[in-house]
Parts: sequence; structure tokens; C-alpha cells
Amino acid sequence: MKLLEETLKKITTVEESYQEAFHRWDNLAIPKGSLGRLEEFAKKIVSITKNQRPLLKNKVIFTMASDHGVANLKVSAFPKEVTLQMLYNFSKGGAAINILASQVGARIVVVDMGVEAEVDSKFNICNKKVNYGTKDFTQGRAMSRKEAILALERGIEVFEEEYQKGIDIIGTGDMGIGNTTSSSAITAVITKKSVREVTGRGTGIDDLTLEKKIAVIEKGIMLNLPDPEDGIDLLSKVGGYEIGGIAGVILAACARRIPVVIDGFVSTAGALIAILLKDEVRGYLLAAHSSVERGHKIALEKLRLTPIIDLNLRLGEGTGAALVIGIIEASCRLLNEVLTFSEAGVNKSNL
Amino acid sequence: MKLLEETLKKITTVEESYQEAFHRWDNLAIPKGSLGRLEEFAKKIVSITKNQRPLLKNKVIFTMASDHGVANLKVSAFPKEVTLQMLYNFSKGGAAINILASQVGARIVVVDMGVEAEVDSKFNICNKKVNYGTKDFTQGRAMSRKEAILALERGIEVFEEEYQKGIDIIGTGDMGIGNTTSSSAITAVITKKSVREVTGRGTGIDDLTLEKKIAVIEKGIMLNLPDPEDGIDLLSKVGGYEIGGIAGVILAACARRIPVVIDGFVSTAGALIAILLKDEVRGYLLAAHSSVERGHKIALEKLRLTPIIDLNLRLGEGTGAALVIGIIEASCRLLNEVLTFSEAGVNKSNL
Repeated sequence: MKLLEETLKKITTVEESYQEAFHRWDNLAIPKGSLGRLEEFAKKIVSITKNQRPLLKNKVIFTMASDHGVANLKVSAFPKEVTLQMLYNFSKGGAAINILASQVGARIVVVDMGVEAEVDSKFNICNKKVNYGTKDFTQGRAMSRKEAILALERGIEVFEEEYQKGIDIIGTGDMGIGNTTSSSAITAVITKKSVREVTGRGTGIDDLTLEKKIAVIEKGIMLNLPDPEDGIDLLSKVGGYEIGGIAGVILAACARRIPVVIDGFVSTAGALIAILLKDEVRGYLLAAHSSVERGHKIALEKLRLTPIIDLNLRLGEGTGAALVIGIIEASCRLLNEVLTFSEAGVNKSNL
Repeated sequence: MKLLEETLKKITTVEESYQEAFHRWDNLAIPKGSLGRLEEFAKKIVSITKNQRPLLKNKVIFTMASDHGVANLKVSAFPKEVTLQMLYNFSKGGAAINILASQVGARIVVVDMGVEAEVDSKFNICNKKVNYGTKDFTQGRAMSRKEAILALERGIEVFEEEYQKGIDIIGTGDMGIGNTTSSSAITAVITKKSVREVTGRGTGIDDLTLEKKIAVIEKGIMLNLPDPEDGIDLLSKVGGYEIGGIAGVILAACARRIPVVIDGFVSTAGALIAILLKDEVRGYLLAAHSSVERGHKIALEKLRLTPIIDLNLRLGEGTGAALVIGIIEASCRLLNEVLTFSEAGVNKSNL
């Protein structure tokens, strides 16, 4: 609890008051406003980092993995063993996140937050296991309150360990069969929408399985009655270890004033937990993309974030975050490297 | 005329019949469809290049520049001299397109298609000048029919020269004070929409200037009565040398089966001219982004293209194209580098 409390204490409001950088942007030799949202991204990174000329050299994707008790109820298109198999695939460099991270020059940290199996230590997977999968939340809480705090703190730890190697921006990612079920439960409770409105097909379930998934989530919420104002209560009752880990990574990044790119629906559920713990977290977040997963738009509205791209993705792993980190990096390079009207010897607008 | 005719003859339909690559994608260790439009991009590149495992190593942005007679009527927020000043800025590496191209590892070719000044040869600018700016199209045609053909052929030439150095994908770009005026005229004629519906604020004109711009375009169309079925007639009457150059570059790329990423409104006007000359061009195009410039959405609908990103850009230069070329390259790397279910040892879906 001490690590969590100390981290929360360090998170302060992001204020937009970095006039030197904003003034430079306003004088770049381009028509005013013509770079659209790239200007918004660059100014946001300046405000978060309090650095007038930020460079996003060290980019890190944290892909947090865990298993879910509810997966035993067959709410997913894939069997539970796939979580571990995909972890090994990440480690071998053969998954989509490996390619997309490499494309933008980001490194990946794959974290076992609670996979329901022993993870072979020969693979390059960070061991932050809280337990061997959560419990089925239709039978009781998914994890104890103590475990929820532990998941958050292990997320903080993994960020801090990586921070020592250099971090300028992070993306979050997830892997865990059953984790959209947990994310829909969290989203329903926080946004006060019906479960149906925030529950989608995850990795691709059919109509019948979707109905079962909705019923499972409704049962879990009714049984556990999570407190929508208490992030730890909510996480422990219907959450997952990787969702706690994502929230922890986010909190740690905010405490260090490092910008956070949240990926899709599961990462957004982690961000929702993080803002329940500290509302100031909002200012540090950029939403990578608009997921196909039903509920994601509603969750992003709650975060008051507009996604950067919309390419009908619904893979998770951090893939959407990796895709946009290159765009965000580019926005900062524009601030740093584009010449101003006077530097470039270009006439200003007549109007 | 011979070069143009030969190039048009070489452009054949893009057919989606590359089963080996499509089969590989369908077996990647990801939930079916979960990479959304990245799958569409990869499959499109396969179909265009007829390469089952394409790699987009050599990326080139062609930034075509010219001046416009109508700019003398003060339809732009910037004075005409800015075209040349920006060319020098490109050459010095200080413009937005330099940074965004560098971010995705693309090289830039800056081309003088018809700047109204001598371009200092010490700058690295390709000289394909057709003339010193077009004529004011409210007084007669912007250029002769012969010049329109010359602009197209010089665009073909510049692509061919660069092709010798290696090209796997291209982006188009533009620079030219007054060129959204010309692009709106082309768009209005081809889409049969009113001038008002396809005319925007360009680099940022006020309401009064916008009304004048609309009146100028209406006058130009009424005086010249361009044939909406004849690309050369249309280009010569209300077009620009850089728009002809863009169309030429596009045609040459299609003849070589090289994918073309079109940037914003002016590039789209060039693409509209290109499809008038050869309808098969459609299959080779990807639309980078949805510009703020009014008329761009209508022009993209005519091309039947859905833009890849929407970041409220309206700068031109090829900036939108550069931003998305990294995403398109990533989609091909996914096809090549992500392991299939059997390669990765991951269980398939139960459904």
C-alpha cells in the first residue's frame, strides 16, 4: 500500500503553461492550424513533460498478461492456454505487437501479471505474477483487495525498473483470454451504462456466446456490487491482474511526468481504474485508437479523450498504441525541427 | 504525347487474386479480422505489386510545386513569393514534409513544375519547369493543351528518373500559392457539385476572401467550360502545372505497379485528372487523410477511397502521405513477419 500511496501523491495536474514551446509552434513556417491535431499532441507532450523541446527517443510498450477465472465459462472464442502461448510468441518476436513496436522503434516489456501456468524462465518475460489467474467473478470476487493493491504496485514496479533504462513515452497493452469480459464489467460500473451497451465480441464470439458473456457480466456485477467510486474495490471484484498492472504502469508514468498512450478497450479499462485512484491522471493520457470492441467509445468518452486513429483494430497487445507513437513522436519533431517564418525566410500570411 | 500514351497503355487493372498472401494473412496467429484496415492495406499492396510478400523499403514523396495566375487576384492568405521561399525551405530540410518524411524513412523529391521565378540551381530542386506560373484562368485558359500534356509527361519523367534509384511506394505532395483554387475548380467540374460546396479556406482566408475565391472559380469555369470527361482539357483550362505533375507521377507509378498514397486536396485533384485519363488508376491509390479543406471529402468519394487518418490536417506538401506511409509499411511487415498459428504454436479459435 505504501508504494501505491507514494506514487499517487506524486501525480500532479498537467497545466498548459509552456509559452516558449507554444510560441515557437505558433511561429513555424506553416499556415496557422494547418497541422491539425499534430499541434495538439506536441503541445500536450510539452505540458506533460514540462520540457519546451521534448524528444521522444525512448519509447516503451508494456504488454501486461494474465488469465481470468471467467474464461472457464467459455465467454471467449479462444481457449485459456492461448494466453501463455501468446506470451511465448511475444518473446520470440512473432506477434503483431513485436512488428508494430519495431516499426516505430519502441521496445516491448512483456509482463506476467497472473498467467494460470508456470512461465518458462528461458523466455524474456518479466515475472510480476500476483496469482495463477483470477477467480470466476460470478462466484465471488475475482481477487482479494490485497491482491488488487499488489497488482497495482507490481505495475508501478515494472515501470520503475524500466524507467532506469530511459523512457520518454509509453504505450500500454494487454494479453489475456477473457479480459474483455472483465473490461466490460469495469466499464459498465464506472460509466453506469447497461452491460449490453458496453459488451462486444472480443476476439470474435458468435451471437449465442455474446448473450452468455452479457449474462456472466451482469451476474458478476449483481453478486459483487462493486463500488463505482473505489478503484481498488472495483478492480478486486470484477477486474484482472493485467488490468491492475496496466493501471499501475499508468500511475507510475504519471508520477514521473511521462506521457501515456492507451491502446484499446482493456487498456482503457485500466485507465478508468487509474483515474478513479487519482483524477489528475487524465492529463497524461492520449488515446491511440477507436476499437471495434463495443464499449470502447463509451469508455473513451468517460476519459474525455479523442482517439488518434480509427482503423477498426481490436487486437490489443498494445498494437494501436505502437501505431500512433510514431505519429506523436513526429509531432514533437515538428516542434523541434521545422523552421519558423524568420528562420526559413518565408513571408507571413497577409491576413 | 507519345510518352503519355505509352504510359497510359501500360496501366492495367488491379485484381485481387493473390491467394498465397491472402491465405497467409488469414492464418496469422491473431483473431480473424482483428487488425482491421491494416489487413486491407496489406492485401491491397499485394494486389498492386503482384508480390506475395511485399516490403516497402524504398519510400518516396514527390512534392510538386508551381505558381498560379489566379493568385494575383489575392485568393490566398499568402503572397505568391512564398512558393519559391518554401521550395528553398524544403531544400534546406526545414519544412514539415522534411521531418515527417524522415520520420518514416522516406526520401523527398522536390520538383519545380512551374514556379514564377528562376530557381537557384544550388538548391536540390528538380527542374521540370513547364512555364513561369499559369495564366489567370478568369481571363482565358490557365495553360495551353500542349503545356498540359507537357506537365503530365514531366511528371512521368521525374518518376522514371527516381524509379531507377528504387521505389516501392510513393506519396504525392504539393506546394503552390493559389493551388486550392485550381483544385476546387477541377473538383467542381468532375463531381458536378457547386463551387461553394467544394471551396475551402486553403491556407486560412477570411470570409470575404472566400467569397471572392468562389466567384473567381465560378468565373473561370463559366468562361472556359472545361470538358468534365477530358482530363487534358480540364487541366489546361483551370488546372496548374503541379497538379499536372502530380497526375503524371501517379500515372507513371501505376504503369510500374507501384502503390500511390495521395495526400490532401491538391493531390486528390491530381488523382482526379489521372483517373479521367485512365480509370484503372483507381486500384493503385490509397488516400492518406481527410483534409479540413472543404471539397476533399467529395473528391475522395468520387475516387471511392476511405482516408486512413483524420487529424484535421490542411498543410499539403505531402505531409499526410508521409504520416501514413509508415502505417502502410507496417501492414506489409505484419503479413511478412507475424507468425501463423502453426508457426507460433498457438491454438486456433474454438468457434
